[in-house]
Amino acid sequence: MTHSEWDKLSKVHRLNLINSCTGYKSANLIGTKSETGVANVAVFSSVTHLGSNPALLGFILRPNVVARNTYENLKATGYFTVNHIHQNIIAQAHQTSASYNAAESEFEMVKLTEEYLSEIDVPFVGESPVKLLCQYLNEYEIKENNTIHIIASVVEIYFRDDILHEDYWLQLDQADIVAVNGLDGYCLPKIVDRFDYARPHTKTKSILKNGT
Amino acid sequence: MTHSEWDKLSKVHRLNLINSCTGYKSANLIGTKSETGVANVAVFSSVTHLGSNPALLGFILRPNVVARNTYENLKATGYFTVNHIHQNIIAQAHQTSASYNAAESEFEMVKLTEEYLSEIDVPFVGESPVKLLCQYLNEYEIKENNTIHIIASVVEIYFRDDILHEDYWLQLDQADIVAVNGLDGYCLPKIVDRFDYARPHTKTKSILKNGT
Repeated sequence: MTHSEWDKLSKVHRLNLINSCTGYKSANLIGTKSETGVANVAVFSSVTHLGSNPALLGFILRPNVVARNTYENLKATGYFTVNHIHQNIIAQAHQTSASYNAAESEFEMVKLTEEYLSEIDVPFVGESPVKLLCQYLNEYEIKENNTIHIIASVVEIYFRDDILHEDYWLQLDQADIVAVNGLDGYCLPKIVDRFDYARPHTKTKSILKNGT
Repeated sequence: MTHSEWDKLSKVHRLNLINSCTGYKSANLIGTKSETGVANVAVFSSVTHLGSNPALLGFILRPNVVARNTYENLKATGYFTVNHIHQNIIAQAHQTSASYNAAESEFEMVKLTEEYLSEIDVPFVGESPVKLLCQYLNEYEIKENNTIHIIASVVEIYFRDDILHEDYWLQLDQADIVAVNGLDGYCLPKIVDRFDYARPHTKTKSILKNGT
């Protein structure tokens, strides 16, 4: 299928196709607080690891849409939280994408637990098995479609003890964390295998010990 | 756990923790061809949807490491392919991360099928159930860690007919496509539910018809 073919599709069909063709996406709730104290939480599927030293992540914002509150809050306070979505809260997580007004807290609207774990006054999602406190560092405007790539440093990580392996790998499926397929499909991954660091002309070696 | 704590970890432990803490990642093989005609394929976990109109994606490159061949090739030719990883080829996909030299084709080294589907002379991965032809548009240097954010337009999409829904959503689990947990954990997701477009003060509605 070529771009001249999907250009003829309806807007919704095109959104479904293009959003699902790049593969599975991370499923995260981003928590922020406004300067007037209103807690905000919104679902994002573009959080991406950028580097380990320093620990950096990025995500994509469309300034003109729902995520506006997230953007205004994280710029005003300098902080936000990234909270993984457990399979039991996928309906609530999806519902945070509705355009509530800035005075309404999505935590109350969708019945997710507002939780405070850090010295910084920014809300985490109580139901999430992995949660990150992040500090805004920079942003790059992607001129090709007027989106913003937010760059942030990870400053604190909270996770369920039972998903931490000896080598500090967090096994996400032990905590029933979901991924996203397209705009609206929530999926539950299960580990198949882990492999050792790959070297040329050397057989790929499994290192999975207790995957399931 | 705070950044002062993970700063004390070994390099490998830190890599495992920080790479797994942001959630599931897309699992893609990026195919390119050098100006001298050597086909290259390398695994990436940072391909991210940027927008549907125009159809854009991005991914992150570390210029000094293995992916150097990918970068040089896509800059020289203007094109690359994004190929989803089927669960049957996870060991080969992982092995492409070994630092083969530029004259060695990873297709031959790891035994993946080099396939040509487009008029453009750039290789796809025969074993992949979803494949994209992409055209390089731009790049943004992320100064915070000297990585490069590549921006590309999707120009052709190839997929197995049986994963296309009536609304043009591609159901990735029907084709046994994997996601990545951390640096080296390959996971197989299964659909849990799909939801309708979310509206404020309206109950979240499932739209899943034939998920499993």
